[in-house]
Amino acid sequence: MEMNQNITDDVVKCATDRAADPGIFPACKAGKSEYTASERSSRGGVDFPVSVVLPAGGTGERTGLRTPKQFCTFLGRPLISYTIHAFERVSWIQRIMVVVAKENTELMTDIIQRYQHTKVQTVPGGSTRHRSICNGVLALGEDGEDKRPEVVIIHDAVRPFVEEDFLYKIVMTAKEQGAVGAIRPLVSTVIATTSEGYLDHTLERAKYRASEMPQGFTYDIIYQAYKRCSESDLEFGTECLHLALQYCGTNAKLIEGPPTLWKVTYKRDLAAAEFIIKETLSQSACVITGPSLHAVTLAGALWKAFGTFGMVHLRGLDGLAISGTMTEPAPLIMELASAAKPRNVLLFGIQLHQPNDLEQWERSALRVAEITSALIRERNPALVGQLLQA
Amino acid sequence: MEMNQNITDDVVKCATDRAADPGIFPACKAGKSEYTASERSSRGGVDFPVSVVLPAGGTGERTGLRTPKQFCTFLGRPLISYTIHAFERVSWIQRIMVVVAKENTELMTDIIQRYQHTKVQTVPGGSTRHRSICNGVLALGEDGEDKRPEVVIIHDAVRPFVEEDFLYKIVMTAKEQGAVGAIRPLVSTVIATTSEGYLDHTLERAKYRASEMPQGFTYDIIYQAYKRCSESDLEFGTECLHLALQYCGTNAKLIEGPPTLWKVTYKRDLAAAEFIIKETLSQSACVITGPSLHAVTLAGALWKAFGTFGMVHLRGLDGLAISGTMTEPAPLIMELASAAKPRNVLLFGIQLHQPNDLEQWERSALRVAEITSALIRERNPALVGQLLQA
Repeated sequence: MEMNQNITDDVVKCATDRAADPGIFPACKAGKSEYTASERSSRGGVDFPVSVVLPAGGTGERTGLRTPKQFCTFLGRPLISYTIHAFERVSWIQRIMVVVAKENTELMTDIIQRYQHTKVQTVPGGSTRHRSICNGVLALGEDGEDKRPEVVIIHDAVRPFVEEDFLYKIVMTAKEQGAVGAIRPLVSTVIATTSEGYLDHTLERAKYRASEMPQGFTYDIIYQAYKRCSESDLEFGTECLHLALQYCGTNAKLIEGPPTLWKVTYKRDLAAAEFIIKETLSQSACVITGPSLHAVTLAGALWKAFGTFGMVHLRGLDGLAISGTMTEPAPLIMELASAAKPRNVLLFGIQLHQPNDLEQWERSALRVAEITSALIRERNPALVGQLLQA
Repeated sequence: MEMNQNITDDVVKCATDRAADPGIFPACKAGKSEYTASERSSRGGVDFPVSVVLPAGGTGERTGLRTPKQFCTFLGRPLISYTIHAFERVSWIQRIMVVVAKENTELMTDIIQRYQHTKVQTVPGGSTRHRSICNGVLALGEDGEDKRPEVVIIHDAVRPFVEEDFLYKIVMTAKEQGAVGAIRPLVSTVIATTSEGYLDHTLERAKYRASEMPQGFTYDIIYQAYKRCSESDLEFGTECLHLALQYCGTNAKLIEGPPTLWKVTYKRDLAAAEFIIKETLSQSACVITGPSLHAVTLAGALWKAFGTFGMVHLRGLDGLAISGTMTEPAPLIMELASAAKPRNVLLFGIQLHQPNDLEQWERSALRVAEITSALIRERNPALVGQLLQA
């Protein structure tokens, strides 16, 4: 940004949206699932009522953290809000029944209000996973037969990356087959152990799969399965598909899901989840430059290098910048960043010292690219408004 | 840092060591494993030769990256170098036989030289995992019977977080029992599928475990197992423990390992690995301040807040800073950072504007804490030498 003829420094600004705004979380990408938009239209849309049961009663034992992992925040937004949003943006999903432990009801109500979730109702959890899911299923049927969903999706609050195409596949298969579950190949070999802690035998990997979420059921089947199952199932069972098989005689269809369906379980998974959130959000970053030829060329190169984000050349800023001819760039960026923050935009400044020779210029351009890339990747709110030097 | 009486700004510097220096990677923490140092001394040390086979032939298929994941870099150092270092720092491990695909031999030789690995030899990989491990085991025996290890540890290049206490347990058990493997509880329910893709049955989770690495064998058992096994085992088998059982009649002892033993498999695991590396390294950050009372108080508070890192109050810096009375803080920090970089120290500057009233002071102190925390957590080399404003 050429602020006047005496100041030859250029400012390249890099602004990234924050996750806190549900509106900018990008929709599912094409080509990631077997069901594309065109397949959906050829098979027909979802013209029957679908609702979701989302058990969120976990205690966070395995992450070693005090906050249950579904309530851990990523870029200022709790994990469960990402999961809810993944369902809320699907037009053919009516209701999301979140099953939450009594001690977290207030927190959950806060989250629903703050992130403006509109399809969510809450119901108190039970003492085990199955009792909680059962409460959710029953709550979906309480408003009378005509309001009952035809298909129920059961998912986990700690699997935030489920996409519409895959949900479509789950729901259509549930309608046809009665029960359906997502599976993944096993990452490790599974072995049977003796009671003394020795190897008994190794399972043949090709015949087995990891059972993941989401799962789908017609309302009737999941309702009957919970109505008929034993106290021991409610206490010790782990698998809804197993209940459907045992109590309704329905062999669930199994569909391989994408690797992003994995469950946030350990502390390291929180970092992995943050990485995926950041990677997805990085698509909505933009670079703003002043009108100087060098700056525009450089911003163009950055745009090409990072590929995924759009570039905005905001001429209006120059006017702002020279409103007082003596305006220093550092306070200006801090001021702009403060103004941008309430609109969920993270703004960082990079000051490029316009060099005299080509070699220096190349070095500076490389620094700008490095810093821009780091800012986009890290999306660190603590560095907002800083004027970095390239 | 009070640079002279006219400049009242304080500079708090935050320097963090880089992973690239193998010397600063911290040793294993106490209390993380069942075998503590005192147990080791009561059970006696490892007084027999132990070597490692480290297959590193993976193609990186599942991460979706061009670089095989063992060669992906974290904070400037490839993943496999962290894994090698985890073994190299254990005094009773003699040799590490890295099995590497022919096309990566040169890259591996580079890594060994650059990160000064001293216990490593390489051997060309085979067409399958078992052929590769077999090559490694045979290579360990080539120097004659007297140089043969008594116990062989088999591990994965993409499991960098193995600790000495757990290796001790593996090695002592291998010596006693002939074969031993690390296990973990199953994260997902395992299900058997019909050939048509329907649920056949659900496995009872309590009886099964995920088989992980490291595994340990006496040299004789692993050598005989590979000598006797079939071509089909070498081609399609996945589990060394299974070969020991089938061809040597040895039921391996199974030991539960820590969650950090997990295998870097998907792209998200790279983020999880980086998180653990950063978390471990954050223990070696320090805060440097000038002598002003406010700055020292603040640095003390930061030191308490972050707990794990030591504080250095480097008086000498003041001398540097005022060597020319008109030295601007920004270029000075850039200069110091350049000087520190070859010594693997990342140096960042934070300029604290000494405020007039208490409320402002609290706000500034909070900003310093925020920025310091972010810098320590992210360890971003692209931001080295920046003077950030608090």
